[in-house]
Amino acid sequence: MHRSLAQLCADFGGTIKGESEIVVTGLATPEQAGPEDLAPLLHHRFLVASTTSRAAAFLIDERLAARVTDRPLWVHPRPRLALARILEELHPEPHVLPGIDPTARVSAMSDVDPSCRIEAMAVIEDGAVVAARTVVGARALVGIGARIGQDCRLGPGCMVLGGCVLGDRVRIGPGAVVGSDGFGFVPTDQGPCRVQQTGHVVLEDDVEIGALAAVDRGAIGETVIRRGAKLDNMVHVGHNAEVGQHAMLAAQCGLAGSSRVGAGALLGGQVGVGDHLHVGPGARIAAKSGVAGDVPAGATYAGYPAVPRSKWLRAWATLLRSLDARRGR
Amino acid sequence: MHRSLAQLCADFGGTIKGESEIVVTGLATPEQAGPEDLAPLLHHRFLVASTTSRAAAFLIDERLAARVTDRPLWVHPRPRLALARILEELHPEPHVLPGIDPTARVSAMSDVDPSCRIEAMAVIEDGAVVAARTVVGARALVGIGARIGQDCRLGPGCMVLGGCVLGDRVRIGPGAVVGSDGFGFVPTDQGPCRVQQTGHVVLEDDVEIGALAAVDRGAIGETVIRRGAKLDNMVHVGHNAEVGQHAMLAAQCGLAGSSRVGAGALLGGQVGVGDHLHVGPGARIAAKSGVAGDVPAGATYAGYPAVPRSKWLRAWATLLRSLDARRGR
Amino acid sequence: MHRSLAQLCADFGGTIKGESEIVVTGLATPEQAGPEDLAPLLHHRFLVASTTSRAAAFLIDERLAARVTDRPLWVHPRPRLALARILEELHPEPHVLPGIDPTARVSAMSDVDPSCRIEAMAVIEDGAVVAARTVVGARALVGIGARIGQDCRLGPGCMVLGGCVLGDRVRIGPGAVVGSDGFGFVPTDQGPCRVQQTGHVVLEDDVEIGALAAVDRGAIGETVIRRGAKLDNMVHVGHNAEVGQHAMLAAQCGLAGSSRVGAGALLGGQVGVGDHLHVGPGARIAAKSGVAGDVPAGATYAGYPAVPRSKWLRAWATLLRSLDARRGR
Repeated sequence: MHRSLAQLCADFGGTIKGESEIVVTGLATPEQAGPEDLAPLLHHRFLVASTTSRAAAFLIDERLAARVTDRPLWVHPRPRLALARILEELHPEPHVLPGIDPTARVSAMSDVDPSCRIEAMAVIEDGAVVAARTVVGARALVGIGARIGQDCRLGPGCMVLGGCVLGDRVRIGPGAVVGSDGFGFVPTDQGPCRVQQTGHVVLEDDVEIGALAAVDRGAIGETVIRRGAKLDNMVHVGHNAEVGQHAMLAAQCGLAGSSRVGAGALLGGQVGVGDHLHVGPGARIAAKSGVAGDVPAGATYAGYPAVPRSKWLRAWATLLRSLDARRGR
Repeated sequence: MHRSLAQLCADFGGTIKGESEIVVTGLATPEQAGPEDLAPLLHHRFLVASTTSRAAAFLIDERLAARVTDRPLWVHPRPRLALARILEELHPEPHVLPGIDPTARVSAMSDVDPSCRIEAMAVIEDGAVVAARTVVGARALVGIGARIGQDCRLGPGCMVLGGCVLGDRVRIGPGAVVGSDGFGFVPTDQGPCRVQQTGHVVLEDDVEIGALAAVDRGAIGETVIRRGAKLDNMVHVGHNAEVGQHAMLAAQCGLAGSSRVGAGALLGGQVGVGDHLHVGPGARIAAKSGVAGDVPAGATYAGYPAVPRSKWLRAWATLLRSLDARRGR
Repeated sequence: MHRSLAQLCADFGGTIKGESEIVVTGLATPEQAGPEDLAPLLHHRFLVASTTSRAAAFLIDERLAARVTDRPLWVHPRPRLALARILEELHPEPHVLPGIDPTARVSAMSDVDPSCRIEAMAVIEDGAVVAARTVVGARALVGIGARIGQDCRLGPGCMVLGGCVLGDRVRIGPGAVVGSDGFGFVPTDQGPCRVQQTGHVVLEDDVEIGALAAVDRGAIGETVIRRGAKLDNMVHVGHNAEVGQHAMLAAQCGLAGSSRVGAGALLGGQVGVGDHLHVGPGARIAAKSGVAGDVPAGATYAGYPAVPRSKWLRAWATLLRSLDARRGR
């Protein structure tokens, strides 16, 4: 990148503490940085490493900046956002080279825009539609009648199964599955009876799905992930669930059938949400919590079964204190 | 479908409350239904949506029927089963068009019945046997010496690895793996020492495995999933585990090595079962529970470590009440 | 194998209790063994099956040996290790038949050693390097510029994405993903803003990764799995995490971004570790625990939030006892 801290400041905001004319040529973590690198120091855990870091300077927030004195600092009100902007500039989305790899299998009855890139061994089935500038990665599959919007990135080995619909700029991680059958079985005396899963999945614009995640199709009707929602690796979304706009679900979360996660909600890793339950807009659920009842809008819940986080913390504190008391006797 | 409620009743059972000659032409969820649709109303959460639903009529059970008065109702003792039957009629399993896609790689030393359908990029390795009318989806893999029964459906991208054996009518979800190596390592001073995993997996008739699930082969001998058992997405089954007939394991469950789940047992999502433990026949384990000891036949367990559900509920109630008391002081 | 117990003892150590000249011809589980098989009896759960087992003899440890009297016993101080050695002898790694399957897609700009085996439909992209005797399984993918060491085994359908680096003798399970994007988003008023994930993954020598696991690339810099560490099926490793030498992570574990697991640590199934947290070397975390703070070296933790295991057990005991007391009144 080769820019002085002063220039970075001018381009991306913030202020400089210390020598502002120092020039940095690369980005690296505090531990891996060389003497010409700028290192983001975005968490107090890195303060220890900072003393031995070879970094030329740190990108840091106001609070942590008070604890680092041995180095020039680029202090930013939102250092993660500054980092995102720099990385965007340094690593722009590569221009899509259009073309269909000779080993891809593209149905003559599909409709693939000539500006698309279809990589090795990809399969596009009958009736599928793939809009402009979309990349279908190696070994990815677009099923019968599926519709993919513009500027999407289907990762290698992912599958968008029959009838599913993706908006524009959707990204699907490697190996992820969109449109798997929901777990629809009715217990009978002769064993579980299958309920045909006849619906589909809608991923609205700017949705991202992580590696090896699975979004089940509706039993009837739709499973919907709303605009801009982000799902991490190995997230499971059951049939007819709905994930609200800009919601973020961390890795290994599971949403049972017909559950709802409101707009802007944040779910930590390994959270589970029971069937037909509602997590309100803007709610935050601590990692590994088990949501066994509705969560009000804006609330912060934790635990299993999930309760307001402060309550859960107090419950544990009480329990552990009673233990100490008992021991003291 | 185009049938009157009276006709549906005659064909699938139940009774009509209100105008029985109304004709419905499609099936949809209460929220997505149009004015000619029949909407299944299978959970009290949909009662709110029912008032604004445009559905012509609801398929509903006796208990919920008492709470809907503004619409003709098809009241059924087992509405989910009625729905399964209708969907089966509306969406019959498509007749299998036999043939081998030219891009598939079928070993000359395999034995694939001419009535099978082998889709694009599928790989059938040496010595594999695939019986009548089975469909091997796009990019699926049948490993060396694996044997697949009749009328199976191997989803796109799934893998049935070397030596594994599937009965008839088995369904494997997209991306699932049958026959992965178990986690067999012995700690030594030089680090973990690998135990070769030399067994295989048996999936009996009518077993279904969800998307991105994995069933490990036995270290020696078999990992067995018994007749009619159903495993949801991302379920992990460790080596030498056994899942009983008609058992149902919801998404993201994990069974450790040599564990056993009895016939007809029901495991909620994200449940974990420790190694060598037994979950008795007909037991029910609440979602997200951690089974750390045997569970008796027919018992209902919850929590982590899992205990009888009523006990777990009381424990939490007690804890939270003591909190309120403490606050009250 | 066809050897007497005395011979096995001479070759692999241990002592014989009972008839030492009995010859065994195969290995099987106690339940599946025939009358000429040796059956490892490695857990007290198998004692019940032992009485009806048809096995000729058991491989067993000192403690369990005291409870079996009806059969010749090969008593070994480390029976699992003995089993590993026998299996290694009976099922040696097959010699790699070099060659590139005609359906594989190997870039002319990659560097694949002629001693490698590249199976059906595998994809090797531009700039990738694959060293001697490595096997790239059917449908596996080696991305742009990735480097794979000697004697690696890339399972069928796995993906090593662009720029990732593998040492020697690394094994990747079927469908696993190395180098997926991390979950890097900064919340803004316009929704989550993507942080380009520009780093890579390093898997050192002798690392093993299970089926359908995912290791995210660093946001900047590396995600590292150190020498000899073993990750089971469906383990998720977030960006910039580090797993220490010889650590073992059981199935469905999740490590959040920038977390660290020390050398030799053991994590049970479904464990979660929060972002930026450290699990010390040699620590043991019970299955399903949620690590919400640092864990000291050598400690044994359990629960959610994870605390020292003894404390967690006492807490539950106290809670359940108070319940019984309450009932007794």
